[in-house]
Amino acid sequence: MTNKYSIILGNLGNTCDRFCKSYKDNPSSEEMLDLAVKKIPHIQGIELVGTWDIRPENVKDMKKRLKDYGITCSSIIPDTFTDQEYGKGSITNINPEIRQKAINYLRQMSEIALEIDCNLMNLWLGQDGYDYLLCTDYNQEREWLNEATTLLAKEFPTLKFALEYKPKEPRNFSYHARMADTILAAKETGCNNVGITIDTGHSFYGGENVAESVVLAKRAGDMLYHMHFNDNYGSWDDDMIVGSVHFRCYIELLFWLKKTNYQGWLSMDQYPYREDAIGAISESILWLKKIEQIVDQHYIEFESLIKQNDAVATSRLLRNFIA
Amino acid sequence: MTNKYSIILGNLGNTCDRFCKSYKDNPSSEEMLDLAVKKIPHIQGIELVGTWDIRPENVKDMKKRLKDYGITCSSIIPDTFTDQEYGKGSITNINPEIRQKAINYLRQMSEIALEIDCNLMNLWLGQDGYDYLLCTDYNQEREWLNEATTLLAKEFPTLKFALEYKPKEPRNFSYHARMADTILAAKETGCNNVGITIDTGHSFYGGENVAESVVLAKRAGDMLYHMHFNDNYGSWDDDMIVGSVHFRCYIELLFWLKKTNYQGWLSMDQYPYREDAIGAISESILWLKKIEQIVDQHYIEFESLIKQNDAVATSRLLRNFIA
Amino acid sequence: MTNKYSIILGNLGNTCDRFCKSYKDNPSSEEMLDLAVKKIPHIQGIELVGTWDIRPENVKDMKKRLKDYGITCSSIIPDTFTDQEYGKGSITNINPEIRQKAINYLRQMSEIALEIDCNLMNLWLGQDGYDYLLCTDYNQEREWLNEATTLLAKEFPTLKFALEYKPKEPRNFSYHARMADTILAAKETGCNNVGITIDTGHSFYGGENVAESVVLAKRAGDMLYHMHFNDNYGSWDDDMIVGSVHFRCYIELLFWLKKTNYQGWLSMDQYPYREDAIGAISESILWLKKIEQIVDQHYIEFESLIKQNDAVATSRLLRNFIA
Amino acid sequence: MTNKYSIILGNLGNTCDRFCKSYKDNPSSEEMLDLAVKKIPHIQGIELVGTWDIRPENVKDMKKRLKDYGITCSSIIPDTFTDQEYGKGSITNINPEIRQKAINYLRQMSEIALEIDCNLMNLWLGQDGYDYLLCTDYNQEREWLNEATTLLAKEFPTLKFALEYKPKEPRNFSYHARMADTILAAKETGCNNVGITIDTGHSFYGGENVAESVVLAKRAGDMLYHMHFNDNYGSWDDDMIVGSVHFRCYIELLFWLKKTNYQGWLSMDQYPYREDAIGAISESILWLKKIEQIVDQHYIEFESLIKQNDAVATSRLLRNFIA
Repeated sequence: MTNKYSIILGNLGNTCDRFCKSYKDNPSSEEMLDLAVKKIPHIQGIELVGTWDIRPENVKDMKKRLKDYGITCSSIIPDTFTDQEYGKGSITNINPEIRQKAINYLRQMSEIALEIDCNLMNLWLGQDGYDYLLCTDYNQEREWLNEATTLLAKEFPTLKFALEYKPKEPRNFSYHARMADTILAAKETGCNNVGITIDTGHSFYGGENVAESVVLAKRAGDMLYHMHFNDNYGSWDDDMIVGSVHFRCYIELLFWLKKTNYQGWLSMDQYPYREDAIGAISESILWLKKIEQIVDQHYIEFESLIKQNDAVATSRLLRNFIA
Repeated sequence: MTNKYSIILGNLGNTCDRFCKSYKDNPSSEEMLDLAVKKIPHIQGIELVGTWDIRPENVKDMKKRLKDYGITCSSIIPDTFTDQEYGKGSITNINPEIRQKAINYLRQMSEIALEIDCNLMNLWLGQDGYDYLLCTDYNQEREWLNEATTLLAKEFPTLKFALEYKPKEPRNFSYHARMADTILAAKETGCNNVGITIDTGHSFYGGENVAESVVLAKRAGDMLYHMHFNDNYGSWDDDMIVGSVHFRCYIELLFWLKKTNYQGWLSMDQYPYREDAIGAISESILWLKKIEQIVDQHYIEFESLIKQNDAVATSRLLRNFIA
Repeated sequence: MTNKYSIILGNLGNTCDRFCKSYKDNPSSEEMLDLAVKKIPHIQGIELVGTWDIRPENVKDMKKRLKDYGITCSSIIPDTFTDQEYGKGSITNINPEIRQKAINYLRQMSEIALEIDCNLMNLWLGQDGYDYLLCTDYNQEREWLNEATTLLAKEFPTLKFALEYKPKEPRNFSYHARMADTILAAKETGCNNVGITIDTGHSFYGGENVAESVVLAKRAGDMLYHMHFNDNYGSWDDDMIVGSVHFRCYIELLFWLKKTNYQGWLSMDQYPYREDAIGAISESILWLKKIEQIVDQHYIEFESLIKQNDAVATSRLLRNFIA
Repeated sequence: MTNKYSIILGNLGNTCDRFCKSYKDNPSSEEMLDLAVKKIPHIQGIELVGTWDIRPENVKDMKKRLKDYGITCSSIIPDTFTDQEYGKGSITNINPEIRQKAINYLRQMSEIALEIDCNLMNLWLGQDGYDYLLCTDYNQEREWLNEATTLLAKEFPTLKFALEYKPKEPRNFSYHARMADTILAAKETGCNNVGITIDTGHSFYGGENVAESVVLAKRAGDMLYHMHFNDNYGSWDDDMIVGSVHFRCYIELLFWLKKTNYQGWLSMDQYPYREDAIGAISESILWLKKIEQIVDQHYIEFESLIKQNDAVATSRLLRNFIA
């Protein structure tokens, strides 16, 4: 397998929650970039969060730095989630001025992507959803969601727009909630440069089997554009080190990524609240490398097992991977 | 509103679980039909489970009984879940003979539907899914799923095939799991007589907001064909009396059914393990009638509230519905 | 019923999450107090968060203000959750200096409680728990938990210490997680001034039936000291307006509070991220007032229903409360 | 480690659910016993389900068979869950005659235990709980629960009564739901021969961390009497092969069993719906043997890690156990 590894730069920075504003210090993007390149094994790409890491003012500088490090910008993640004005939605806000502001911002970030030779926009529209029942015109808001996505996809036909789904948080319900509804949203645009990002943790607590989600995206027409990796206990986006909770499902996932000929990045997206960030993210990559190796060495056996439909035979093989 | 109420006949019969084989007696289909018509308020339709209630041998008799009672057969629910041979899948079984047997059976049930003037096949493919990871070729099995569904839909163009989704049980993962993935499966057939059944309880424990699922089906092209009603605690298919746990979400659901111009049945699908079945099912209908009345009387206010996006205003109105 | 209503003062202030630092402005404690007293119906008490609302420097002033408003300080909630140093535990931190600092702080807050004529310390030890497996000596940390709680309870025998349980957040696992384990922790102290706070939302997503938790506390020896009210969807601490999701369980809860002769406060503890705080908190109280009225008027019928064990009979009565 | 392995005999028999009455054939207890002894590795004990496997009529015969095989009866599991009369509770039924019948049956089973040299009664009271709110007098039923348990424990002081908790199924809420509430129930009896059975799967979907539950039982006074092993996806009692979903938590569990000096059985309790039972149960034991070996070989390192509180260090060690 020739998986390409990447991380989200901001994972190295401060962490907080609604109770504690700061569990750590927050280095500058430039310092984090330097740390990432020097300390984290196997990475070839970096995802940059819009505004935080990358803005019109620093594009040239950031581009040069990446080039000097020999690192690709694996995606731009526009920030539509920290601005108070987007609290009740960015491109689905009932206020037309806020919707326009969000579109303008996404357009600006898309231009930056072009400038920095990044071909993937990772759209995690965290504030686009709702909290209480009987307060929202779901049909109207989905219409706005579709219009804005379509507009961007048409304006930037050389960019890929990957919609990152998540069941909830910060809203109680997100519009892009799980794989299948996000495929529907992507297809609604009629644009062939709109696809999906899987965040493994979002998939876990959405009740999906993540490998099956890979298959859904494949059948819908090679719609899996990007992958974010982390782990959790299945009920919330705990954003932990890969392998902390799940094990077998990562094997199945990497098997199906290979089988469906996934060509995108394996990018780490954690939130190491109280952990050493370099250590925590490195661990995720090293776990995935182990799993990648298992999949590569036993690919033929796995191919055979998924035809057999025999849980005992599968258990027997997997047991061998434990020292 | 002119909602049409219906029940699944078998809900009046025996109940069991994997521990206790029988909590009740099991009357004959004919006795249950008589009871239903005479004791349950407001019903105009009856859903018949294939083989249990309706078979080639008794179609004529059942048709006459329904006619005499002035009752419509609201759907046929083929039984692909009690036969041991379907244990690891009916139309997605890796054994081609079992797949063929299942198709033949579904074809037979479709012919019965035509004969009994029922225009809706409710396909709950409970055994089609999987239990353990790395034992199943999801892509191949979805291919079979699609082939068989397409074949039936084309052979019976005057019937509607409503795919009933459910996250799990009896399999740990079902292929038709939630609204959006089932829309994708239905669209894959390319047939315009394949749509969806919402079972409210399946939606609840699938993590959906059921009213939003109605909107998804509407946007996909009027794909909501049928509705099953029951209630649960959100983590399992407890199949309880409507209103036992949830309240506000049924109001929102009936509001959106009206707003999207849903023309199908409101059919009760409970599993009154230890309760008097007539009483339990009647309660569900009477709760829904109350909710229907609230929606009818306050429709304009709800229309206004979903534009306002103000949880406090919504709470204030809803509070008035409590005596 | 003569329920006493209260709110947590800080609920009127700023809200944030790990993505957005501020959805709102943050008034001073004094402004919030004035707002609360003038705008929120039925309240007789206010809960003050340690350090934020109440400190050695402002005790006298706050005491005078409360007296002038004719309002009781229903509880002090020490803040052991915003300080970075408590990130991996306050009184269970593996660092003895941090444990001592936490104890000193709790002692200081207890003295303030005495000074302000408040007899209840609400201990929500949010950071005391753990995130990853195989990183924690649960036995040792529970020992420290017990030692510190015992020490405080003995030093302040006229105060009641109410342990507020919560399954997770901000830690992936909390030591005080659900009613029964928190009763065990309280009993371990051997002090009869250590009891429990139920937060309804924490109970909901902990998988409890909250009324049964009231009974557990009663049977353990009148250990229910305090109540926090809010609502959620059952999978997370959404901290919503009472009645937004659940309905029947609040009726059952208020019935059992009355039946077990609960004498404490009904205090609102919400987190109105994007809502008007005054409106959202007032709604909760007004919903509870409606429910209180239902319980008062139908107490005898409920007494009879819980002896009957007939879900249909219960459904029938409850249906009448819907307009 | 000198763990003793055991299985529940009935796991080798027929499986069913509420949809399909039989996925398999059902051999006789005697045939299953022979199969178990000859085919399943490492077992030294067998759990017998009351009435199914062991009755007054066959005690002598079963005792002889076990002796001949050199196998211990690790527990008797009285069957209070298949009889229709216990549908709304056995020892907590509102009907005093049914309560008495249940007590008599449990007494009979206890006598059988004595006769067959089995010192452990595993009480899984599956029907003792409730389904709908406002239908049950929780306090009264817990009183009956306590009375009957106390009565048995006093009548049979040489037997250990292990209460097996489970959050739900077949009732929507069980009285013995999680570790801590079951400790409270056991302590209420005042008898020192009443303790707890952990079923790992019940613990998983009860939201517990099972190793912490072991610690709770230890702190309560060596109250962990028995262990049932299986695996699931965290939301239901899927009763799968150990290691199918979880991995790290079994390591932590076996570490804490060793550290707390657990002396009981590791007994397999699965429900291999569609799998070869011998194969599925053998796999669980072989997975546990691997994990036992890891714990034995790295015990000192784990001791050190739980003092360090560093998730990265723990991840690093655990990664080494993957081939």
